[in-house]
Amino acid sequence: MSVLERHRVPFDGSFRLADAPTVPDGKPLEKKAAKKRLEELTEELSDLQRMLYAHDHHAVLLVFQAMDAAGKDSTIRNVLTGVNPAGCEVYSFKRPSSLELDHDFLWRTARRLPERGRIGVFNRSYYEEVLVVRVHPGILDSQKLPGPIDLDAVWEERFESIREHERHLARNGTLILKFFLNVSKEEQRRRFLSRLDEPHKHWKFSAGDVRERGHWDAYMRAYEEALRATSRPWAPWWAIPADDKPAMRIAVAERIVESLHGLGLHWPVVSPEEKARFDEMRALLEGEE
Amino acid sequence: MSVLERHRVPFDGSFRLADAPTVPDGKPLEKKAAKKRLEELTEELSDLQRMLYAHDHHAVLLVFQAMDAAGKDSTIRNVLTGVNPAGCEVYSFKRPSSLELDHDFLWRTARRLPERGRIGVFNRSYYEEVLVVRVHPGILDSQKLPGPIDLDAVWEERFESIREHERHLARNGTLILKFFLNVSKEEQRRRFLSRLDEPHKHWKFSAGDVRERGHWDAYMRAYEEALRATSRPWAPWWAIPADDKPAMRIAVAERIVESLHGLGLHWPVVSPEEKARFDEMRALLEGEE
Repeated sequence: MSVLERHRVPFDGSFRLADAPTVPDGKPLEKKAAKKRLEELTEELSDLQRMLYAHDHHAVLLVFQAMDAAGKDSTIRNVLTGVNPAGCEVYSFKRPSSLELDHDFLWRTARRLPERGRIGVFNRSYYEEVLVVRVHPGILDSQKLPGPIDLDAVWEERFESIREHERHLARNGTLILKFFLNVSKEEQRRRFLSRLDEPHKHWKFSAGDVRERGHWDAYMRAYEEALRATSRPWAPWWAIPADDKPAMRIAVAERIVESLHGLGLHWPVVSPEEKARFDEMRALLEGEE
Repeated sequence: MSVLERHRVPFDGSFRLADAPTVPDGKPLEKKAAKKRLEELTEELSDLQRMLYAHDHHAVLLVFQAMDAAGKDSTIRNVLTGVNPAGCEVYSFKRPSSLELDHDFLWRTARRLPERGRIGVFNRSYYEEVLVVRVHPGILDSQKLPGPIDLDAVWEERFESIREHERHLARNGTLILKFFLNVSKEEQRRRFLSRLDEPHKHWKFSAGDVRERGHWDAYMRAYEEALRATSRPWAPWWAIPADDKPAMRIAVAERIVESLHGLGLHWPVVSPEEKARFDEMRALLEGEE
């Protein structure tokens, strides 16, 4: 398996989360080298976004899903802060509102999809519908679904909706990359304790986060099934080891940069007619004096 | 007049655009020093935005208006690229769609206002309604306004709507700063010629831009009236000299940083009840081993 494909969730349903590492293989970069590498990548990403904008035929959708404290917020911040915010939009999806629950489960995120030329980031997404909702199926009762709910079929139906939604987006020019930040249970424990110990991290902490830890195994089963069912060539999942934050950020940035290179972007070309009009304009401006 | 207030449009209607400089006073910083100063400011802005997010009681709205090629896009890019895109959203308002024209003129921008904790940037805004529309009043015919339009009253009515809209937002926690990037007609000519000369800038150029130059004086009158009528303590206008781009970016960043300092942001404080709950959580996590 090539280095590039190392953390890609296979498209044939063979993914096993138990085999997916939470620590990067090999020796991690020294702190200074890691910082430099991430800077190079974010600069490259920034340049690629400018061309994406000028080219104006593709959008990029980055989906981030993970257990609490895996580092979604800080990865998004560190990987995308060098990009022009005019070309990048980040949405964090929280508990759906009652207006949102009056629509199908793809409605609220569809309204936030990035336009051509822009990078859109979903911090959580419609995947919550097959993750937290699967772990707590009682939530389905609040979703106003028609008729009785078949718990044996509903998840497979949702996977199908998601696969077809993403396929449609990809067909129409959206590059889709999905990141599962794969943190170990022990590392999450350490990070929660650190949030409790540091007063300036208190506001990021909620008691609910620790309660959800009690459902760890159910979450891992839900992630495994979701990643298996929805990793496809047009919308791959990447299971990125998340116990080492600097290495994780570099891995995420590398996947984004290499996928953008794959789009074959180029600066728009001016037609001969436009060129002729430009020459008229130049004459006009030069004649003003 | 203090340095800080130098470019602020007065609140008493006495503003005269003819007296507003398009070049900064004093000797500009050397290139390297200017770069360093802007970096300091964007780092400070990035820190302030993080606290704005944690504090979660204020939003920030930055409005940019200017003639073409004054540097709106590049100023937004240079001042805000260091900010976490999860805390910053930029909208460029172009010609209104037919859906948007079926609403009042504040509707389409109101939907894009930043939420608490975030910085929202409007690249053009509802001010177009008293600028380009005033210079080309024929546009009013497409706006489906009720009854006959009184061209003597419509602009004053729009100013009133804008002032009250901004006052309402400010009252509810939005910090509003409005920037008019004040470029000279000669400098615009130079920049247009440079766009025509450099192939990779061609896609940014349109023949319409040169046509609008023919209405320069009408635009200046419209800007002067709009800035006079709508610069208020809760939503000041800043007329920033725009012929020197590095100095302009620094001036814009300084105004934003100093205004954010004025909000008195602080990290959220944990209540004794929450503190007690945190101690329980710590005990739980520590007892897991």
